[in-house]
Amino acid sequence: MRFALPLLLFAAAAHAEPLSPAARLVGAALVEGRAFDTVRSLTDHVGPRLTGSPGAERAVEWALAEMKRAGLSNVHREPVKVPRWVRGDESAELVAPLALHLHAAALGGSVGTPPGGLTAEVIEAGSLDELRRRGEAVRGRIVLFNQRMARSDFPSYGTVVPLRGAGAVEAARLGAIGALIRSVGTGSHQLPHTGGTRYDAAVPRIPYAAVSGEDADLLHRLLGEGGQVKVRLRLGAHDDGEVDSANVVGELPGSAKPDEVVLLGAHLDSWDLGTGAIDDGAGCAAVIEAARLIRAAGLQPRRTVRVVLFMNEEHGLSGARAYAEAHRGESGKHVAALEADSGAGRPTGFGVAGGAPSVELVRRLVAALSPLHAAEVASADEGGADLIPLQEAGVPVIGLTQDMSTYFDWHHTAGDTLDKIVPDDLALDAAAVAVVAYGLADATERLPPSPPPPKW
Amino acid sequence: MRFALPLLLFAAAAHAEPLSPAARLVGAALVEGRAFDTVRSLTDHVGPRLTGSPGAERAVEWALAEMKRAGLSNVHREPVKVPRWVRGDESAELVAPLALHLHAAALGGSVGTPPGGLTAEVIEAGSLDELRRRGEAVRGRIVLFNQRMARSDFPSYGTVVPLRGAGAVEAARLGAIGALIRSVGTGSHQLPHTGGTRYDAAVPRIPYAAVSGEDADLLHRLLGEGGQVKVRLRLGAHDDGEVDSANVVGELPGSAKPDEVVLLGAHLDSWDLGTGAIDDGAGCAAVIEAARLIRAAGLQPRRTVRVVLFMNEEHGLSGARAYAEAHRGESGKHVAALEADSGAGRPTGFGVAGGAPSVELVRRLVAALSPLHAAEVASADEGGADLIPLQEAGVPVIGLTQDMSTYFDWHHTAGDTLDKIVPDDLALDAAAVAVVAYGLADATERLPPSPPPPKW
Repeated sequence: MRFALPLLLFAAAAHAEPLSPAARLVGAALVEGRAFDTVRSLTDHVGPRLTGSPGAERAVEWALAEMKRAGLSNVHREPVKVPRWVRGDESAELVAPLALHLHAAALGGSVGTPPGGLTAEVIEAGSLDELRRRGEAVRGRIVLFNQRMARSDFPSYGTVVPLRGAGAVEAARLGAIGALIRSVGTGSHQLPHTGGTRYDAAVPRIPYAAVSGEDADLLHRLLGEGGQVKVRLRLGAHDDGEVDSANVVGELPGSAKPDEVVLLGAHLDSWDLGTGAIDDGAGCAAVIEAARLIRAAGLQPRRTVRVVLFMNEEHGLSGARAYAEAHRGESGKHVAALEADSGAGRPTGFGVAGGAPSVELVRRLVAALSPLHAAEVASADEGGADLIPLQEAGVPVIGLTQDMSTYFDWHHTAGDTLDKIVPDDLALDAAAVAVVAYGLADATERLPPSPPPPKW
Repeated sequence: MRFALPLLLFAAAAHAEPLSPAARLVGAALVEGRAFDTVRSLTDHVGPRLTGSPGAERAVEWALAEMKRAGLSNVHREPVKVPRWVRGDESAELVAPLALHLHAAALGGSVGTPPGGLTAEVIEAGSLDELRRRGEAVRGRIVLFNQRMARSDFPSYGTVVPLRGAGAVEAARLGAIGALIRSVGTGSHQLPHTGGTRYDAAVPRIPYAAVSGEDADLLHRLLGEGGQVKVRLRLGAHDDGEVDSANVVGELPGSAKPDEVVLLGAHLDSWDLGTGAIDDGAGCAAVIEAARLIRAAGLQPRRTVRVVLFMNEEHGLSGARAYAEAHRGESGKHVAALEADSGAGRPTGFGVAGGAPSVELVRRLVAALSPLHAAEVASADEGGADLIPLQEAGVPVIGLTQDMSTYFDWHHTAGDTLDKIVPDDLALDAAAVAVVAYGLADATERLPPSPPPPKW
């Protein structure tokens, strides 16, 4: 299939029939694409880019240069205030019934432990309800939230993530002194999966860390034997205030209605354990490349295509809010906003926040991707986390859907690295984004506004 | 297939025909087996058991108790002198062209760095020949041996392992101050694979560590750009002299020739990063269980079945040598020796060190395992590392062959943990060992002596 495409292009040229925009975009992506080079440059030369860190600031500089290299216009930064959270040194040890190194990582935003760490018996809960049923038994303990995520099951991510977000608060309410969570992911490689957590001003802040699936299984088995299971947790994490950062924006100006915008978004920040190749270096590369492909294919749609790399998707969405705030007056001029934040797997289609007319319009615009099995269009709740503030303002939002079968093996771990990306798959992601972006930017119709997003 | 077996047993019972020994052993293993419990107990309650460490001594106590629980007789320890090597704290950092944490682990036996670590430019070599061609360029550098191991390809392990064994010596000859090796394994999970290395008294000892495949790829890409790539390596490893340890032995006495022995071996020590579930907790469980199954199935062969859990396979084979030395006078009484040290994958058959008559005899003895696809018998060079001294003394040696398609993903890493074992597969391993052990211990014929092992 992949190798047949360039041949089709040659055949079309021999017939001297003009190629469709989709064929031009896909051919350019697969034969002369730069998406993999772009994500390689971001991950190998910038590396991890935790919101508020020096790496994140290098990423802003990188994005400005990379958008210019892609031929975008009006490349600039837009200010965002972000938290600076610092991981510090950390470790976790099983101290009873046997001594063993555990594989743990503080959740983003967690407070640290005292410098010598804290040691306590572990108590396990599969859910917040189960925790509450444990009542007084929780006091003075370290809670282990142990709920397994099923492979390739995005809904199950949604089921477990509330434990990551609210676990420390709920455990502390019952007197726990620390909390652990079974990594929210599908891998089994002794890699802890980090991710954001939060506190409640009314409840003591207790340290909260992810442990690997293997270690969660071990603790579970040992607890099942009825004896004492004790862990020492030492987290050097701390908050370091608020700092200045930026979203990075660049454009492909429209020919007829340059003030009307199709926004292509991804997030520039990553977690700190890996180099953020699939989350979300791949998305950054895909949207920059999509804009470049439209230009490289000799196309200029009637409306402007605007690429926005959002800062701080992972740790509070302040870049998304800053963008929506700064562009409040133009929300009616945003004819659509798309986010690419589902890794680097092959594209399968699009999720559109809206009813049948929205789905039908997008389906028509991307029908040419059917031979690539990338034209499935369905109704969705959202277009992506960074688009929530725009969606709340009525902007029609869309997400790129992709093969995520291995995404949660690596997401938020040290294993989120370049080798997890198949270059051809990423090239097709960029082509799919280019096809829908070109279609939306050149269409005579406009999508109806998206309904507001559900509350998580 | 698996569920059909108990039904076959019931059907046979209805016919009132006596079940074959193989059917009894397989049925007992799958329906009333203890192999998974045994490896669970070893990995959850003893944990890592690096030769010379307190964990290894706990493992000796565990093995004595576990053999008694399995109903073996004459359970005892036999003395072995072992090295005590201590890993200490360790870290590796990329310091140029960007700062990044690397995933590294000292190879077993490596010397440490100075306490502050050592920092140097990296030079890459795919082989010892390529290293030598680099000549003077190696001086003052950290050498990265970067050779990829192909998946499921045991021969390629043999190709790369000499780099692990001899890399530090060869790099130091050329003036290198440290060495790294791309992990000898097939996984890609940021897990360094440790393993033994060695020094030469005539050459300075330089620190030598494994890095993850992801990090080796990163260093390779950065080196390919032509700029300076610098790493800081800090290893707290050191040798701590020689200490007393033990092999653990237990027996199922033969009915007619109790002085003739079929030896079933595995190794009790493990590397320290994981809990040694597949290397070689699974083998320990399989051979103890094989002996227990023979008894549980109501069988008593004519010769003795002797289970030997060897200390220190991983770090010098001193347990294997001590056993051969202590039993030198009985080598003619060892009618066969088998080792189970290839993980916990389903059994596929046996490798026999010897020619066609040896292969033919074993093939006949295990023919009943054909419906389980566990009866492939082939000629092999060896029966297992711990059997080399016995093989040199002419004992016929055999190895259990197994599905190893994921073995090198986890071997010698922190991910070598219980969850990598499928209980039914391990039960079949134990059954296959029991079938061949019973056959050899009860046969009228004896295997001819094995030829000496090749030199690695």
